[in-house]
Amino acid sequence: MSDPHFNRIALIGIGLIGSSLAHVIRQRKLADEIIVSTRSAHTLRRAEELGLGDRYYLDAGEAVAGADLVIICVPVGASEAVAKWIAPALTPGAILTDVGSTKGSVIRQIAPHVPEGVHFIAGHPIAGTEESGPDAGFADLFDDRWCILTPTPDSDQEALARLSAFWQACGSMVDTMDPEHHDLVLAIVSHLPHIIAYNIVGTADDLETVTKSEVIKYSASGFRDFTRLAASDPTMWRDVCLHNKDAILEMLARFSEDLSALQRAVRWGDGEALFNLFTRTRSIRRSIVEAGQDTDIPNFGRNAPTQKPDTPAS
Amino acid sequence: MSDPHFNRIALIGIGLIGSSLAHVIRQRKLADEIIVSTRSAHTLRRAEELGLGDRYYLDAGEAVAGADLVIICVPVGASEAVAKWIAPALTPGAILTDVGSTKGSVIRQIAPHVPEGVHFIAGHPIAGTEESGPDAGFADLFDDRWCILTPTPDSDQEALARLSAFWQACGSMVDTMDPEHHDLVLAIVSHLPHIIAYNIVGTADDLETVTKSEVIKYSASGFRDFTRLAASDPTMWRDVCLHNKDAILEMLARFSEDLSALQRAVRWGDGEALFNLFTRTRSIRRSIVEAGQDTDIPNFGRNAPTQKPDTPAS
Ligand SMILES: NC(=O)c1ccc[n+]([C@@H]2O[C@H](COP(=O)([O-])OP(=O)(O)OC[C@H]3O[C@@H](n4cnc5c(N)ncnc54)[C@H](OP(=O)(O)O)[C@@H]3O)[C@@H](O)[C@H]2O)c1
Ligand SMILES: NC(=O)c1ccc[n+]([C@@H]2O[C@H](COP(=O)([O-])OP(=O)(O)OC[C@H]3O[C@@H](n4cnc5c(N)ncnc54)[C@H](OP(=O)(O)O)[C@@H]3O)[C@@H](O)[C@H]2O)c1
Repeated sequence: MSDPHFNRIALIGIGLIGSSLAHVIRQRKLADEIIVSTRSAHTLRRAEELGLGDRYYLDAGEAVAGADLVIICVPVGASEAVAKWIAPALTPGAILTDVGSTKGSVIRQIAPHVPEGVHFIAGHPIAGTEESGPDAGFADLFDDRWCILTPTPDSDQEALARLSAFWQACGSMVDTMDPEHHDLVLAIVSHLPHIIAYNIVGTADDLETVTKSEVIKYSASGFRDFTRLAASDPTMWRDVCLHNKDAILEMLARFSEDLSALQRAVRWGDGEALFNLFTRTRSIRRSIVEAGQDTDIPNFGRNAPTQKPDTPAS
Repeated sequence: MSDPHFNRIALIGIGLIGSSLAHVIRQRKLADEIIVSTRSAHTLRRAEELGLGDRYYLDAGEAVAGADLVIICVPVGASEAVAKWIAPALTPGAILTDVGSTKGSVIRQIAPHVPEGVHFIAGHPIAGTEESGPDAGFADLFDDRWCILTPTPDSDQEALARLSAFWQACGSMVDTMDPEHHDLVLAIVSHLPHIIAYNIVGTADDLETVTKSEVIKYSASGFRDFTRLAASDPTMWRDVCLHNKDAILEMLARFSEDLSALQRAVRWGDGEALFNLFTRTRSIRRSIVEAGQDTDIPNFGRNAPTQKPDTPAS
C-alpha cells in the first residue's frame, strides 16, 4: 500500500469536514505539520483556540506553500475562487484534492487553474452530520464510511494511490467513480433527501390549519427525522443545488412522478398498491443495516430500550 | 387526580403498542390483571412466552368480559370488526379506548357499536418505533411523549379524567383535541413524512442509472434516515392512508405545490430563494430539541462523538 503520510497538509476551509480532518490527521499522525486556512478571522481564531493546526493563515496562498497535500474544504460554489487564489503557490509534485458534495462542477471549477506538475484528484467523503463550523469536527467521522475519489483518465496513478491510502488511514473505505456518475448517485442518496426534508419542513411551517407549536409537540411521530436533515448548513446546500442541478432535477422528476402515483392510490383507496409499495421498501432498510451503514436499534436508539427484554416482564 | 389504576385491563391486539402497554401496566402496577387478546394463535403464543399478560384469549369477546378498561390496539382498518366482536361482552361502566393513528374514522367505526353505559373515548399515543409485533414493545415507549385523547361533546367527564390519569401514569403528557383536528395535525407530522419516505425509497429502488448496491453503500449521506421510516409496518400504514385520506391529500397537495416552487428555484439557479428556505427551516429543529422531543446529538448519535472535544486535539 502507498504511504498515507504527508509532510505538510494544508486544509483550506476548517468547518465540519476540515476540522474533522484536522482531528484525524493529528490523532493518527498522518502529517508532520497541519496548516489551517479559512477566509474569516473569526473562524481562524476559533480553529486556533481548538488547536486544530500547527500554523494558521487567512491567506490561502501562503497556507499552501510547501504543502505536499492540499485539501479544499469549502462550499462547492467557492471552489473556483479558492483554486485561483492558491494556484500560483502550489508546490510541484503536491497532491490537490477537495471534499465537495458535487464533483462535475468542482472539477470544472478547479482543473483549469491547476499548474503543471500538481496532481489534482477530486474527492468526496460520504460522511457528515447536520452541524457545521470548526467546533463540529471529530476524529472518527470518517470511520467505516465510504470516500469516493473521481480521478479523470489523465490522473496520476501514484497520486491516486497515495490519496486512497490517506483516506483509508482516516478510517474510510475508498471507491473511485466517474464524476458524472458520482453526481447522479449522490443526487438520489443525499441531495434529494435533503431537498425533500427542507421542503416538508417548509410546508409544515407554512400551514394555517395546524399551528407551529402543534408541529413541534407531536414531531416525534416522524416529522422530527426530517427536521434534522433540514437543519443542515444553508450555504452548503444552496451550493449543492446550484452545482448539481441536472442530476437533482432528474431525480426530482422521478420522485414527483412516483408521488403522483401514490397520491392517486390514496385518492382511490387502492390499498393493494399502497401495501405493495410499503412492503417493497423494507428490504432496502435491511440491506443498509447489514452493510453496516446504519444501526438497527429502533428510533435510532433515541428512546428505545438498550436491550430487548427476553425474559417475562415482572 | 383521578385513579390511574384499573382492576382488569384487556388489550385487544398485542403488537408494538399493545405489548408496550402490557409492559408499562405491569411495571407501574396500573392493573390487577392484564388480559391479552389477538386474532392469531401464533402471536398469542408469543405474547404468552413473553409473559405479557395474566390470561390469553383468541376470542376478543371473552377477553373483554369483566374488564374495566379495554384498549383496542389493532390497525385502524380493523376497528369496526373488533368493535362488533367485543360490543356484546363489554361490561357496563367500563372505559373503551383505542390507540389508532387516525381518529375520525376510528370513531365512526367504533361509536355506533358501543353499548349504553360503556364510556368510549378514542386516543392516540404519539410514540412508536419502526418495529412491530409483540417482541417490539418496551415499558418506557410512552415516557415524555404526548398522548392525544379525542373525546366528543357527550363523553363522560369522569371516564376522561381516569383515562388521562392512566396515560400519565404510563409516562405520557395528555392533550385533548377534536378528532378532525387530530387527523389534520397527524397528517403533517406523521402521515406525510412516512408517505414521503416510502416514496423516495421506492424511487431509489426503481432507478436504472444508479444501482441498488450504490444506494445502500452511500446511504449514510441522508437517504438512510428515510429508510428507517419506510421500514414501518405496511398494514398499519396502508390503513392510515385509507382512513385519513382527506387530510393526507390536503397535505400532499401543499407539499407538491411547495416542491414545484423549489424545483423552479433549482432550475433557474435562484440561490437566494434556496438559501432563504434552507435557513427558515432550521428554527423548527431548534424548537423541537428545546421541547424535549428530540436529541441534539449530531446524526442522532449514530457515529458522533459522545462528547465534543473542548481541549486541543493531541
Ligand atoms: N457537512 C457535511 O455533511 C458534508 C459531508 C461531505 C462533504 N461536505 C462538503 O464539504 C465541504 C465543506 O463542508 P462543511 O460541512 O465542512 O462546511 P462548514 O462547516 O460550513 O465550513 C465551511 C468552511 O468553508 C469556508 N467558506 C465558506 N464560504 C467560503 C467562501 N465563499 N470562500 C472561501 N471559504 C469559504 C468557511 O470559512 P469561514 O467560516 O471562515 O467563513 C469554513 O471554513 C462542502 O463542499 C460540502 O459540500 C459536507
Ligand atoms: N407503530 C407505531 O409507531 C404506532 C404509534 C402510535 C399508534 N399506532 C397505532 O397502534 C395500532 C397498533 O399498531 P402496532 O404498531 O402495535 O401494530 P402491530 O405491532 O403490527 O400489531 C398489530 C396487532 O393487531 C392485530 N391485528 C392486525 N390486523 C388485525 C385485524 N384485521 N383484526 C384484528 N386484529 C388485527 C395483530 O394481530 P396478529 O399478530 O395476531 O395478526 C397484532 O396483535 C395501530 O392502529 C396504529 O395505527 C402505532
